[in-house]
Amino acid sequence: MSGMHTAVDVIRAKRDGHRLTDDQIDWVVDAYTRGEVADEQMSALAMAVFLNGMDAAETARWTAAMIASGSTLDLRVDRPTVDKHSTGGVGDKITLPLAPLVAACGAAVPQLSGRGLGHTGGTLDKLEAIPGWRARLSDAEIMAQLADVGAVVCAATEGLAPADRKLYALRDVTGTVESIPLIASSIMSKKIAEGADALVLDVKCGSGAFMKTPADARALAEALVEIGVAHGRRVSALITDMSVPLGRAVGNALEVAESVDVLRGGGPEDVVALTVALAREMLSVAGLSDVDPAEVLASGRAYDVWDRMIRAQGGDPDAPLPTAEHVHTVTADRPGVLAALDAYAVGVAAWRLGAGRARKEDPVQAAAGVLCLAKPGDVVGEGAPLLELHTDTPDAIPAALAALEDAVHIAADAPAPGPLVLDTLRG
Amino acid sequence: MSGMHTAVDVIRAKRDGHRLTDDQIDWVVDAYTRGEVADEQMSALAMAVFLNGMDAAETARWTAAMIASGSTLDLRVDRPTVDKHSTGGVGDKITLPLAPLVAACGAAVPQLSGRGLGHTGGTLDKLEAIPGWRARLSDAEIMAQLADVGAVVCAATEGLAPADRKLYALRDVTGTVESIPLIASSIMSKKIAEGADALVLDVKCGSGAFMKTPADARALAEALVEIGVAHGRRVSALITDMSVPLGRAVGNALEVAESVDVLRGGGPEDVVALTVALAREMLSVAGLSDVDPAEVLASGRAYDVWDRMIRAQGGDPDAPLPTAEHVHTVTADRPGVLAALDAYAVGVAAWRLGAGRARKEDPVQAAAGVLCLAKPGDVVGEGAPLLELHTDTPDAIPAALAALEDAVHIAADAPAPGPLVLDTLRG
Repeated sequence: MSGMHTAVDVIRAKRDGHRLTDDQIDWVVDAYTRGEVADEQMSALAMAVFLNGMDAAETARWTAAMIASGSTLDLRVDRPTVDKHSTGGVGDKITLPLAPLVAACGAAVPQLSGRGLGHTGGTLDKLEAIPGWRARLSDAEIMAQLADVGAVVCAATEGLAPADRKLYALRDVTGTVESIPLIASSIMSKKIAEGADALVLDVKCGSGAFMKTPADARALAEALVEIGVAHGRRVSALITDMSVPLGRAVGNALEVAESVDVLRGGGPEDVVALTVALAREMLSVAGLSDVDPAEVLASGRAYDVWDRMIRAQGGDPDAPLPTAEHVHTVTADRPGVLAALDAYAVGVAAWRLGAGRARKEDPVQAAAGVLCLAKPGDVVGEGAPLLELHTDTPDAIPAALAALEDAVHIAADAPAPGPLVLDTLRG
Repeated sequence: MSGMHTAVDVIRAKRDGHRLTDDQIDWVVDAYTRGEVADEQMSALAMAVFLNGMDAAETARWTAAMIASGSTLDLRVDRPTVDKHSTGGVGDKITLPLAPLVAACGAAVPQLSGRGLGHTGGTLDKLEAIPGWRARLSDAEIMAQLADVGAVVCAATEGLAPADRKLYALRDVTGTVESIPLIASSIMSKKIAEGADALVLDVKCGSGAFMKTPADARALAEALVEIGVAHGRRVSALITDMSVPLGRAVGNALEVAESVDVLRGGGPEDVVALTVALAREMLSVAGLSDVDPAEVLASGRAYDVWDRMIRAQGGDPDAPLPTAEHVHTVTADRPGVLAALDAYAVGVAAWRLGAGRARKEDPVQAAAGVLCLAKPGDVVGEGAPLLELHTDTPDAIPAALAALEDAVHIAADAPAPGPLVLDTLRG
C-alpha cells in the first residue's frame, strides 16, 4: 500500500482541510522515521496540521503510528502499573514524592522522564542533584527495579517512539510546537510505549505552564484523555494551577530537599495536597481505590520506597545536597499581603541563575534556583525576605532580578489563593 | 538588524496571521539563500503563507528580496525593452513568433525562458528541436544579440534570483506550489531581475492551465500587475483561454513548425490572433503604440528577425525539423461537430508520448507530440482523423490514448468557441 502515497499528496490533503486516512498517517510517520519523507516535507505537514487541525481519530492514529515507529516496554510485574505525566511547570517536583508514594500504596510506577528546557525544570535534572544517582537504565534494570522497589524514575530509552523524538526536534525549529494534536500525540506516544496500564495527566494551566488559559488546558486534557481511551488505557487528567510556583523551591537540589520534606511528613501545603490528589487519582485508575495515600505518606512508608529507589539507581539519599556559592535575598519594598508571585517570572529567574538550560546540550547547576520565602496570601512586613536567589555564577543575578521585576505584587489586602486542582477529566 | 530575527519568530508571525514586516521579509529571504534558514524552516513558512496569505505590500517586498538575492541584467540598448511571460499551457508556442514580431516592430525583447515540466511544454525545449540551436548564452552574448537582432530567447542565467530557484524547488516537494503570493513573486522576481522596462503577462485559464478558473486567473493576474507596479514597471496582463490546446501542434518540433507557419503569414487562426494581441499589448506598454503588429507580421519582417535570432544562437532555421518514427491517428467514432477538446488531456498525452518530462533531469523527444487535426467548432465525419500521436517510443501510445479517453466530445451541434482573450488588466 505504501507505494500509493507521496509526501506531497499527504501534505496537500491536510493543507486543503481534509482528514488524513489511517493509511496516509501510518505511511507518512513511518516514511519520516526512515528518512524517506524529508524534514522539509514533515515541517510543511506539521504547519498544515497546526493551522487545519486533526480530529480525535486522526490524532489517535498519529499517536499509534509514532508508537509503532519503535519498541514498547512490556511491563510484566505482579502489580497494577500506573504512570503520571505533567505538562511542565515551575517548581513542579511532584514526581519525586509521588512515585514512591504510589508504589508504597501497592502500584508499580514506571516513570520515564525528561530534562528541562527553558523556564520549566526536568525531573532527571532534579534527581541528578543527588550524589551518585544515575538516570540511564537498561530495560532489564527498569524491570528489575520495578519488581523489587515498585518505582523507577529514569530516562526514556532511545527505542521508544523514535518518530516522536525526530518530530519534536523538528517542531522546535519550525514554529509548529503549540498544536494540541501534535502536543497530545507526542506526550501519549511516549507514555503508551512505556507500557503502563493506567495513566494520570497533570495538565498545568497559567503563566508558568505551556497552556496559559483554562480553555487551552482543557482542550489539551481532552485530547490526551481521548488518545488514552482510544488505546485502551485507563486515563484521567487533572487541570492544575500554575500561575504561582508549586511549593517554595524552584531549582534542582532545592526541589529534591523540598520533596524529601514532603516524604518525611512536612513540606509546603500545596505540594502535599497535589501529591496526594494525584496519588489518589493514580490509585483510582490503577484499581486500588481502597488505599488512602495521605495515610501512607504520614506512615513513612513512602519515604522508605524513596530511599530504596534512589539507592537502586546509585544515589545516596543521606548525602548532603549541593548548595550554591552565592545567595541573594529579595526583600519586600512595602508591608502588606503578597497578592501575586508570577510562576513564569520565577521560572525564568531560576533558569538564568543556572537551574535550567536554553539548549538541550547545556549543563545545569545542581544548586541554582529560587526559594520562595513568601507565597500568595502571606502577610509580609517591609524589608521581609521574599525570594532567595541561589547560584554558583553571581554574574547571573542581575538578569534573574530583571526577570523578577514585575513578578511580585504586594497589596494592602488580597483574596485567598484559588484552588490548586481546577478540573478533573476521566476517560 | 538581522541579529534581531530568528526563523521561528518569522514563521510564528505568519502562522498566527500577522503581516510580515519589510525587515522580516528581507532577513528571511536572504538568510534562506545563504543557508542560515534551513529548508525545513522555509517550508513551514511557505505553508503558513499558503494558508494565511500575504497582502500586496508583503508580496512586493518578498519579490524585491528575491531579486536582491542575486544579480540583475542591465539592458543598455537604444530601444525600449519589453518582455512577455506566460503562466504555461498546452500548445503555447506564442513566444516563438511573438519575440521576433515585437522586435520587428521596434522594441528589444529579452525573453529569458524555462523548460517544461509535466503537461506544459517549455520554450527552450521547443527551440532545441531546431538543429544546432543553443539555449545557454552569457550575459555579454545576450546583450550583443539584443542590440544586433532585437530579440533573444534563452535560458535564464544562474545569477538571477537564486532565492527563487531554491524556493521553487522546495515548494515543489512540500505541497506549497499553488499559492498566489508565492507564484506571483516567483514569476515577477525573475522577470524584474531580467531588466526589461515593460512586461506583458499571459495568464492562462482553463483545464490546460495552472489556474483552472477565471477567478483564480484574475487573482493571479492582479497580484502580478501589483508587483510590477510596485517595482516601477509598466505592466499588463491578459487572461486567455486554455481549455483547448492553442493551435494544432503540441510538442517541441511540431510547435516550431507551426510557429514558422505563423511567421510566414499562415498558421492557425488562434495562434495568429493571440500573437498579435500580445504584440499589441507589448508595444503599448513599451510606448510604441503607433506600429501595427498585424501589418508587420504580414510583411515578412518578423520572419526575417526569427531567421537572424535562430542563427545568432547557432541554429539553422532552414534545416528540416526532426520527425517522429511512429504516428498513430485517432479518428472520430461518429459524425458531428467537435464540441470539446480538453487541453489538459492533450497535454498529458503529449507528455507521455515523450514531448514533456516528469522530473527536471529527464530528456525530451524533439519530434514527439500531438497534432490536433480538428478543433472545436469543426464539422467531422465518422472516421475522420482527429488527432495524430507522434512518438519515437510506440510503447507510450496506449498511455497517451488512455489520457485522451474523455478528451474529445463530438455532438450533434455545438456553440461557437468562446473568446480567446477573456480579460485585460493594465497596471
